[in-house]
Amino acid sequence: MKGYRVAIVGATGLVGQEFVKILLQRNFPMSSIHLLAADHTAGRKLIVRHEDIEVEEVAVDSFKRVDIAFFCAGSEVSRYFVPHALQSGTVVIDNSAAYRLEQDIPLVVPEVNVEDIKGHRGLVATPNSITIKLAVALHPLHKANPIKRIVLSTYQSVSGTNTIAIEELTVQAKQVLEGEAAIPHIYPHQIAFNVLPEIDVFLDDGYTREEWKIVKETRKVMHAGDMAISATCVRVPVYTGHCSSVNVEFTHPMLTDDAERILAQAVGVKIQDDPTISLYPHPWAVVGFDDVFVGRIRRDISHPNGLVLWLVVDNVRKGAALNAVQIVEEMIKRDWLSPRR
Amino acid sequence: MKGYRVAIVGATGLVGQEFVKILLQRNFPMSSIHLLAADHTAGRKLIVRHEDIEVEEVAVDSFKRVDIAFFCAGSEVSRYFVPHALQSGTVVIDNSAAYRLEQDIPLVVPEVNVEDIKGHRGLVATPNSITIKLAVALHPLHKANPIKRIVLSTYQSVSGTNTIAIEELTVQAKQVLEGEAAIPHIYPHQIAFNVLPEIDVFLDDGYTREEWKIVKETRKVMHAGDMAISATCVRVPVYTGHCSSVNVEFTHPMLTDDAERILAQAVGVKIQDDPTISLYPHPWAVVGFDDVFVGRIRRDISHPNGLVLWLVVDNVRKGAALNAVQIVEEMIKRDWLSPRR
Repeated sequence: MKGYRVAIVGATGLVGQEFVKILLQRNFPMSSIHLLAADHTAGRKLIVRHEDIEVEEVAVDSFKRVDIAFFCAGSEVSRYFVPHALQSGTVVIDNSAAYRLEQDIPLVVPEVNVEDIKGHRGLVATPNSITIKLAVALHPLHKANPIKRIVLSTYQSVSGTNTIAIEELTVQAKQVLEGEAAIPHIYPHQIAFNVLPEIDVFLDDGYTREEWKIVKETRKVMHAGDMAISATCVRVPVYTGHCSSVNVEFTHPMLTDDAERILAQAVGVKIQDDPTISLYPHPWAVVGFDDVFVGRIRRDISHPNGLVLWLVVDNVRKGAALNAVQIVEEMIKRDWLSPRR
Repeated sequence: MKGYRVAIVGATGLVGQEFVKILLQRNFPMSSIHLLAADHTAGRKLIVRHEDIEVEEVAVDSFKRVDIAFFCAGSEVSRYFVPHALQSGTVVIDNSAAYRLEQDIPLVVPEVNVEDIKGHRGLVATPNSITIKLAVALHPLHKANPIKRIVLSTYQSVSGTNTIAIEELTVQAKQVLEGEAAIPHIYPHQIAFNVLPEIDVFLDDGYTREEWKIVKETRKVMHAGDMAISATCVRVPVYTGHCSSVNVEFTHPMLTDDAERILAQAVGVKIQDDPTISLYPHPWAVVGFDDVFVGRIRRDISHPNGLVLWLVVDNVRKGAALNAVQIVEEMIKRDWLSPRR
């Protein structure tokens, strides 16, 4: 097949697997796919298009015959291997937090700031899943009526951690249902039938790194350096799908009808909002879908310029792999893929 | 035993059972306990102090030999039977929403507005569990630095609904773990491994009745008619324990240290806040405790006068039964129990 030679670094992880699925589902123009891993999963075989493909251990020379590499093996792996990939002339889309905030690296949500890709030097970063969701849903509103402040609380699923966390939720849920004590390994406390306000490490100011990522990455993606944002990130016993309860303060009053009209036309947004039939997005129902789902749109009765929203996204899909694939699709469409070659 | 003749209306429910437990644990001065129910559970026998007590069906003449009645059988039962109880000279503490917002009925959280009981006419109402939690934790801060606005998102457990909802979570969790479809009965969608932004019925403005209860009851308890409040109430797959992520805007800046000092001295509040050892309150760990737990205390980086808090309470205990028992204890202590007799 004619097309690009693609590599996935972190191919055996949750997001890596989603990459394979999405590339095939979208008929991404691939001539070959290289599955790479930085951990003990190297050596495994994965079936892609009815073909057994062995997962190779990522190495500094893994990228010599690779046009496009998707990195989803965490920040440490990205920090070490992305420079080698770039040196090989490979275009890299990095899902990790390693380069997101570096000034000359585009951090992109295609629906929001695709133009930022233009001057890229081989590397484009994709934001954390909550930022992707916020940017897709709020940027169209921000263009109509600049946002001054966002207060959000999240309900994040265990798939945002990794495959072992999914297993931990299952094992603990069984333990609780059988009347046994649930033993925590991945999370500091039991996650089954529980809620933990801790995602990523705590910083000195009492916020977590995840909460600061949302602040800084959202500002960068939306070109809104002054936007006031405060987040509380909470892990909930859900497998896939991240929710956020969001209070937005605009420069001028934002009528609910206007917000609905804008969101109905927004690319990548799907409104599910009919309280009379209990229609609103919830994690179980969004898994496998591409959109950012918006519901419970209402005025903020505590602020004259306020609006309240409930956002849900498949965090593994649009929150991670899909956003990266869409970035490359845009680069191909606009002939921005290989400025350096 | 010398003491009051006590009745519990709704004795077979979750909160009713908690009433029995708390009255015994606290050595409440009871000469007799009447267990009443308004549903098919009448006729059951419950063991209280090693004695079989039959649950009687509540009737208009149930209160003739009752000094104090705790109502926890829902608004309809309270609306119908509370007037009869009052007519019998019984002092009523009502856990339902039936009379909470009536102007001449005290709505009380003892730590906050015990003085409001003083002029009572036999009936004192206790607020919804989220309001109790907010009032206990925020009133001491409000006294030091008046609160202008509260934005909160909740993580509410299924015990806030009823016993059948607890069973529904268990049954659905087992169904999911066995790879079967989970069938919703109590909630409009699956609750196991899911999150639903719907508690109580939706009103025309897009808020739920639960969200408006929090606004109106918090203002009444805290004597703060102008306080701006916006809530998003969300059901999570947790058995017991309600959490809230709360952003508070004060009149003047509120230093984190000052907030901690005030909360450390506040009655009914327990601080659990040491990020270095992942210490913060979470539902699984607060069950059976009397306090409102506060953690993740930090400045709101999105507002100069803002503070962010994470609050957790046992919703069946301090969120319901305990608050009602504490109201009566205060009435006994202050000799306010029987102004009408």
